[in-house]
Amino acid sequence: MAYVTATEKDLHEKPNEETVSVLNPYLMQMKADILYHFALGTETHDFPSMFGDVKFVCVGGSPSRMKAFALYIAEELKLGDSQNDIPNICAGTDRYAMYKVGPVLSISHGMGIPSISIMLHELIKLLYHSKCSNVTVIRIGTSGGIGIEPGSVVITNQSVDASFKPQFEQIILGKTVVRSTKLNADLAKELDQCGKEINEFNTVIGNTMCTLDFYEGQARLDGAICSYTEKEKMDYLRAAYNAGIRNIEMESSVFAAMCNISGLRAKDKAFTVLEQDPMDR
Amino acid sequence: MAYVTATEKDLHEKPNEETVSVLNPYLMQMKADILYHFALGTETHDFPSMFGDVKFVCVGGSPSRMKAFALYIAEELKLGDSQNDIPNICAGTDRYAMYKVGPVLSISHGMGIPSISIMLHELIKLLYHSKCSNVTVIRIGTSGGIGIEPGSVVITNQSVDASFKPQFEQIILGKTVVRSTKLNADLAKELDQCGKEINEFNTVIGNTMCTLDFYEGQARLDGAICSYTEKEKMDYLRAAYNAGIRNIEMESSVFAAMCNISGLRAKDKAFTVLEQDPMDR
Repeated sequence: MAYVTATEKDLHEKPNEETVSVLNPYLMQMKADILYHFALGTETHDFPSMFGDVKFVCVGGSPSRMKAFALYIAEELKLGDSQNDIPNICAGTDRYAMYKVGPVLSISHGMGIPSISIMLHELIKLLYHSKCSNVTVIRIGTSGGIGIEPGSVVITNQSVDASFKPQFEQIILGKTVVRSTKLNADLAKELDQCGKEINEFNTVIGNTMCTLDFYEGQARLDGAICSYTEKEKMDYLRAAYNAGIRNIEMESSVFAAMCNISGLRAKDKAFTVLEQDPMDR
Repeated sequence: MAYVTATEKDLHEKPNEETVSVLNPYLMQMKADILYHFALGTETHDFPSMFGDVKFVCVGGSPSRMKAFALYIAEELKLGDSQNDIPNICAGTDRYAMYKVGPVLSISHGMGIPSISIMLHELIKLLYHSKCSNVTVIRIGTSGGIGIEPGSVVITNQSVDASFKPQFEQIILGKTVVRSTKLNADLAKELDQCGKEINEFNTVIGNTMCTLDFYEGQARLDGAICSYTEKEKMDYLRAAYNAGIRNIEMESSVFAAMCNISGLRAKDKAFTVLEQDPMDR
C-alpha cells in the first residue's frame, strides 16, 4: 500500500489553477465521451454552453432533496421563481438527478462510496468538457452525530475510515491504492464563521468517519445482523469521539480523495458539509 | 481476518428452515422497528398482511426498471392489467422503490455494495416481521461481460472480489470480517436449464467479480482518473477470465454474503442473475 502521488499526478503537466482537469490521457484521445449515468454526451450535448458558467456544485444523496435545494438556491439568488418547476437535466436516466440554477449545479449521488464515486467521475469529466474554472464542490447530507447536540451541522476537517485513519483505500487492477482524504482547514474555519453569523444552528468542525455499511459498519443495534454487544458498540463510538470524530456517514472519503487528486483541488475549495439528522442514532 | 462462523450463527438457535430469521438479539427486544430507508415501520404498517404471502423478491439497481419488471410479472402471472399503474410501496421516500405483484416483491437498490446492503438489512427485517417463509431472492441487473457474447445472461456461480477471491470483506467496529460469497451450484444449473428452454438468449454460468468502483475498479479507460495503460487493463481482464470470471458488477458479493448468513439461505435459494448490457465494456 502506498499513497498515490507521483504516478498519477505526473500523467499530465500541473493542472492550470483555474480550470478543472482530468487525470486520464486516454480521455484526450477519445472523439466522443458519453457520461452514461447522467445520460449526457459530448456529441449530443453542448457542454460549454450548458455548464460553462458553473462555479458551485452541491451534491447530496436524495434526488428530491437536491431538487428542493435547487429551488431554495433559486429563491436565495433571486434567479427564477421557486414556485416554478426546475427541469431535471438527467431526465434520461433515474441513476442521478441534476438541477442548475445560475452558477450552481445541484446533483444527487445516491448512498455509499461506489454510488458517489460514479457520479464524481462523470461530474469531473462534465466540468472538464465544459471548460469550467474556479469550481467549488460541496457535499451536503445527513449523518449520525457522535457526542454533539442533535441538529448540529458538522463541517468536515478530514474524512477518516472505520479505523480512524485519514485515508481512502481503493482497489485498482486488484491492487490496493491508498489516497489522502484531508480537506482544507482554512476553508472549514471560513464555513464555521458563516454558520456562526447565521446563528440558527450549532456548527462544529470535526473529523467525519466514512463507512461502507450503515448498520454493522456504524455499530447500530437494529440491523438484520448484529454480532456485537451494546457495550462494544459504545466502546467503539467512544474511541471514535476520542479520535476527533463528530459524525459518521458513507460518502466523504472518496469525495475528499477524488477532489484532492483532480483539478477541483486546485483552489483547495472542496469540503464537506454534513447536516446531522436528529432522527439519526 | 477470519470467516465469521460460530459467533454470528450461535447468536440464535438454528433458523427454522421455512421462515426468514434475523441474526440480532436486540431486534427481538425492540417494541417497534422502523425501516427508515423504506419509510415503513412495524407500528405504522401491518407487515404480515402486507407482505406475508411473499415468496419471491427480485432486486435491481434502477427504480424505473424494477417498476417495469413488476408490470411484466403482473402480465406473466395474469395478476392485474399491465396497463394499470402499480403503486410504489416506498412512496414516502426516494431512497428505494418497491412494488408487489401477488407473491413477487420487486425492489430497487441503487448502485454499489453500501446501497444494496442497507436495502438488504431492511428487506430481511421486513420478511422477518411479515413471518414470510420459503422466500427466494434474485438479483437482476446489467453488468460488463468478459469474453462472452454481448447480450448473454450470466448466472452467478460465486461472487469474487477484485483479487478473484470468493469472499466479502466488511469492517465491523473497526475490524475486518470476511464472509463467504458462494452460491448454490444446483440452483445455477436449474436456472441455466430455464434459459436453454426459453432459448432467446445465450446463458452462461460463471463467476461474477464485484467491485467497489465502476471506472478505476473495473479497469475502464474513460473515467476522470486513469493511472494504468491499456495493456495493463487487458492483462487484468485476461487474468479475471482465467479465474472463471465472466462478468463484473457492483453488488453481488454483499448480496451473496447476507443471504448466506440470514434465514434466506435456509433453502439455499439465493442466486444472482446478471443480464449483460451490450452497451457495456
